[in-house]
Amino acid sequence: MDRIDDGAWSELDHLLGPRFSRAETDRREHAASTSWIAPQLPDAVAWPASEEEVVEIVDACGRYHIPIIGFGAGTSLEGSVNAPNGGLAVDFRKMNALLEVHREDLDCVVQPGIVHQELNQQLAPHGLFFSVDPASRATLGGMASTRSSGASAARYGTMRDNVISLNVVLATGELIRTATRARKSAAGYDLTRLFLGSEGTLGLITTLTLKVRPLPAAVASASCTLETLDTCCAAVAAIASAGIEPARQELLDDIQIVASNRYSNLALPVRSTLFFEFHGSADQVADQAKRVEAIVSKHGSIDYRWSDNQDERETLWNARFNAFWATQALDSAKKIIVTDVAVPVSRLGECISATKADLSANNLVGPILSHLGDGNFHSLVLVDLDDQEEVDRGRQFVDRLVKRALALGGTCTGEHGVGQGKRKFMEAEYGSTGWAVMRRIKEALDPFAIMNPGKVV
Amino acid sequence: MDRIDDGAWSELDHLLGPRFSRAETDRREHAASTSWIAPQLPDAVAWPASEEEVVEIVDACGRYHIPIIGFGAGTSLEGSVNAPNGGLAVDFRKMNALLEVHREDLDCVVQPGIVHQELNQQLAPHGLFFSVDPASRATLGGMASTRSSGASAARYGTMRDNVISLNVVLATGELIRTATRARKSAAGYDLTRLFLGSEGTLGLITTLTLKVRPLPAAVASASCTLETLDTCCAAVAAIASAGIEPARQELLDDIQIVASNRYSNLALPVRSTLFFEFHGSADQVADQAKRVEAIVSKHGSIDYRWSDNQDERETLWNARFNAFWATQALDSAKKIIVTDVAVPVSRLGECISATKADLSANNLVGPILSHLGDGNFHSLVLVDLDDQEEVDRGRQFVDRLVKRALALGGTCTGEHGVGQGKRKFMEAEYGSTGWAVMRRIKEALDPFAIMNPGKVV
Repeated sequence: MDRIDDGAWSELDHLLGPRFSRAETDRREHAASTSWIAPQLPDAVAWPASEEEVVEIVDACGRYHIPIIGFGAGTSLEGSVNAPNGGLAVDFRKMNALLEVHREDLDCVVQPGIVHQELNQQLAPHGLFFSVDPASRATLGGMASTRSSGASAARYGTMRDNVISLNVVLATGELIRTATRARKSAAGYDLTRLFLGSEGTLGLITTLTLKVRPLPAAVASASCTLETLDTCCAAVAAIASAGIEPARQELLDDIQIVASNRYSNLALPVRSTLFFEFHGSADQVADQAKRVEAIVSKHGSIDYRWSDNQDERETLWNARFNAFWATQALDSAKKIIVTDVAVPVSRLGECISATKADLSANNLVGPILSHLGDGNFHSLVLVDLDDQEEVDRGRQFVDRLVKRALALGGTCTGEHGVGQGKRKFMEAEYGSTGWAVMRRIKEALDPFAIMNPGKVV
Repeated sequence: MDRIDDGAWSELDHLLGPRFSRAETDRREHAASTSWIAPQLPDAVAWPASEEEVVEIVDACGRYHIPIIGFGAGTSLEGSVNAPNGGLAVDFRKMNALLEVHREDLDCVVQPGIVHQELNQQLAPHGLFFSVDPASRATLGGMASTRSSGASAARYGTMRDNVISLNVVLATGELIRTATRARKSAAGYDLTRLFLGSEGTLGLITTLTLKVRPLPAAVASASCTLETLDTCCAAVAAIASAGIEPARQELLDDIQIVASNRYSNLALPVRSTLFFEFHGSADQVADQAKRVEAIVSKHGSIDYRWSDNQDERETLWNARFNAFWATQALDSAKKIIVTDVAVPVSRLGECISATKADLSANNLVGPILSHLGDGNFHSLVLVDLDDQEEVDRGRQFVDRLVKRALALGGTCTGEHGVGQGKRKFMEAEYGSTGWAVMRRIKEALDPFAIMNPGKVV
C-alpha cells in the first residue's frame, strides 16, 4: 500500500510543489473539525488552485486507488472530513473566488472555497445577498456537500433550493457540469441535487452557480419570551399557518440564554426565547412584525419588541451565531456533542420538550436551539472526553434523540449531514432497500470507493 | 418474446381481472397524448388500485423483462408515454385519492393519479392550495415524473421544490420511501429529487407527499401590453430585480392574442401582452400591483390595469390555460408541435425575439408564450402531418430553437421533459460524460432496462 501511494505522492508533489504536503502538522489540521468525533488523519494534503488541477489530482489518486477527502473550512460536525483509510485531503481554500455576478439573472458563480460571510460581503456592493446562513464560517463547497441550511431556510430554502448548477470532478477524473445556468430545467435526472448532500462521496465540487436575491429594502428584528418551548413551537406554527414568512426565526432555550448572557455580556431574561427577522419594504416589514406580535401575544408573550435598529439586530443575532462558543465557555474543559434532527413542524414542540426532559433526566448539560419554521433543532451536549461514562451517556442521548425524531416522522439530521456520526441511523430512516439505492448509485459512480470512503453510504 | 409475455399477461390477468386489458382500444388510448409525436402502442394496460398491486405488477413484469410505462393523464408533450418496445402501460387513474392533509405542517399525501385541479378543489375547504399549475389537466404522478412547473414557478417553485417525499416501486419490485415527512433533511443522497424528472425510467411513483400553502388572503390580477416581446422581458427582469415576486406572470405574443380572442370570444388588443397575478394580504397585493404598474409604465405601457375582481381574473387566466386549444382552433386540420426551452432571464428577450423571427422567416404559424420569471417559454407550431416538407420545417425549427437556447446558457426543456422528442439534445446539454452519468445511474437501478425504455437516457 505505502509503495503504491508513493507513486501518487511523487506525481502530486511534481504537479503542486509547495501546495502539496505530507507534514504531520498539515495532516493534523485537516482532520480537525468542530466535531467531538475523534480525528483520523489523511496521509497528505493538496491545495489545488484551479479546476484543472483538481482533475489532475483526482486522476492521479484514481490510478493509485487513493482515498480523496474534500476539505473546506473544517466546520463539519459529524466527522465528514475524517480519513479512516488515510488518503489525500483536498483543501479548497485557494479556490475561493467570486467568479461572476449576473445581476439581472439573480445568480452568481463561485469557487468552492469561499466562505458564505465573505461571499455576502462581496455581493453587497451589487445590492445582492446569498441566503443560506449556517452559524459557522463554512465554505460554499462544504455547504453544498452537506446540503446545509441555517436560520433562513424556512423562508429562502436550503442549499438544495439555492444552487443552480455545479461543476463536479468525478472519481474517474472526468469533469461534468450538472446543469445549465437556466433557472429551471426538465432535462433528465437532477444531477445537481444528486451531488448536493453527497458529502464528497460521489465527486469533488469545483464550481457552483448560486441563486442570489436583492438585498431587502428594509429589515427588522424582534424577540420575545414565552412560558414553554412547546408554546414557542405552537406560536411559530400559527405564524406559518397565517401565511407570514419571517426571513429568520430562531428558538433559544433557557440554558442557551444563560450561556449567551455570560458569553456576550447580555441581560436577556432566562426563558424560552424567540428571535425573528423580517425582510421586505418598510411597510411589509412593519406589517409582518405587528402580525407576529398579535400571534405571540395570543400565546402569552408580554415582552415582544421589534425594531429596525441595526445594532439591536446584530446583538441578537450575534448571540445566536456564537451559541456554540457560548456553550463551550460554560465548561472549557469539555467537548460539545452537537447534533441535530428535523421533524414535521406539528411535532416539534413534543420532540423538543421530550429531548429537554431526556437531557435533564440523564444529568447532561446542554442547550437546545431550533430553526423552528422547518422543524429542525440542535442539541449541544457538554461531555468530558476523558470520562467514558459521560461520553456513553451523551452517545445514548443522541441515539434516543434520533429514534424519537424518526418515530415522529422526522429525519436523523436536518442540516449537519451524515458523515460518520449519523451513518448508523441511515437504515432505520430509509429502510435497507432505500439505503441500498444510495449504495448502488455510489458504486455506479465510484467503483473503487475512493471518494470520501466510510461516509453516508 | 410473445410466448414469454404470455406468462406475464396471464399472471396480471389473474391478479387484476377486469383491471387488465389487451384490447386494441385500451392500448391505443394509452399511446395517445397531446404530443405530435407518432403513438407507439403498449401490448397491454393495467389499472392498479393500490401500492401493493403496483409492487406485484412490477415484480411480474420484472421476471419476464417486460417494459413498464407509467401513465397519468396522457398530457405528455414529448412522447413520454410511448411504448417503442411494447410492454405494459400502468394507468394510475384509479389511484387518485387525497390521502392525508396536515394543516399544521402545510403538507398533504396523495396518490399519483390525482389531477392538480382536483387536488386544489379538495384542498380549498382546508384553506390550502398546491402551487404547481401546468396548463393541462395533468396528474401529480406525471407532474412529478417530468419535474413539471407552470405559471407560478418563479414565485413558488416547480415540482422539484414542492415535493417532500415519494414512495417508489423500483424495477426490482422493491418499494422505497425517498424521504421522511420532515421539511428538510441532510441525511444522504437526495432520492426524492433523483426520481423527480426521471420520467418513469427509474421506478413508478406510487405516493407523493406535497408542500401546500395557505390560500392567500387576497388575490389580484393585472394585464398590460408593451411594444415588443423584448420590452416585456426587460420589464419582468426589472420586476424581479426590484424584489417583487408576482405569484404568476405570463407573456402571450400577438399571435396567441389573435387565437385567444377568437377562441374565448375576447377583444384583447393584438400586441405583446403581460398577465400578472399577485398574492398576499389586501395591502400587499395592492402594493405589488402598483409597484409593477410603475415599472411597466417606465417600459412604455399605457394600458396597465389591475383588479381584484375574480371574474376578470378568471377570464384572463382561462385565455392562458386554453392557449393550446385556441391555437389548435386556428387550423383544426393541423397538429401542434409544442416545445419549450428555458434560458437565463437576461437572455430571454433575445431568445424569444430570435425565435419569433425564425418562425416568420420559415413560414411557420404559431404563438409564443412564456412564464417569463424563470426564463421558460413555449412555442406552439401548427404543422400538417401529411405535409412532410412542413413537418421537416417544424422539426428543424425545434432543432434551431434548442441550439439557440443552449448557446445562451439555457436548457433544451424548461418543464415539458425529455421523453423521446428531446433525447437527441441531451448530449449537447450535458456533454457525453454528464449524460453518461445519468445512464450509469439508470443501469444501477434498472439493470434490465424495463422502466420506460427509450426515454431520457
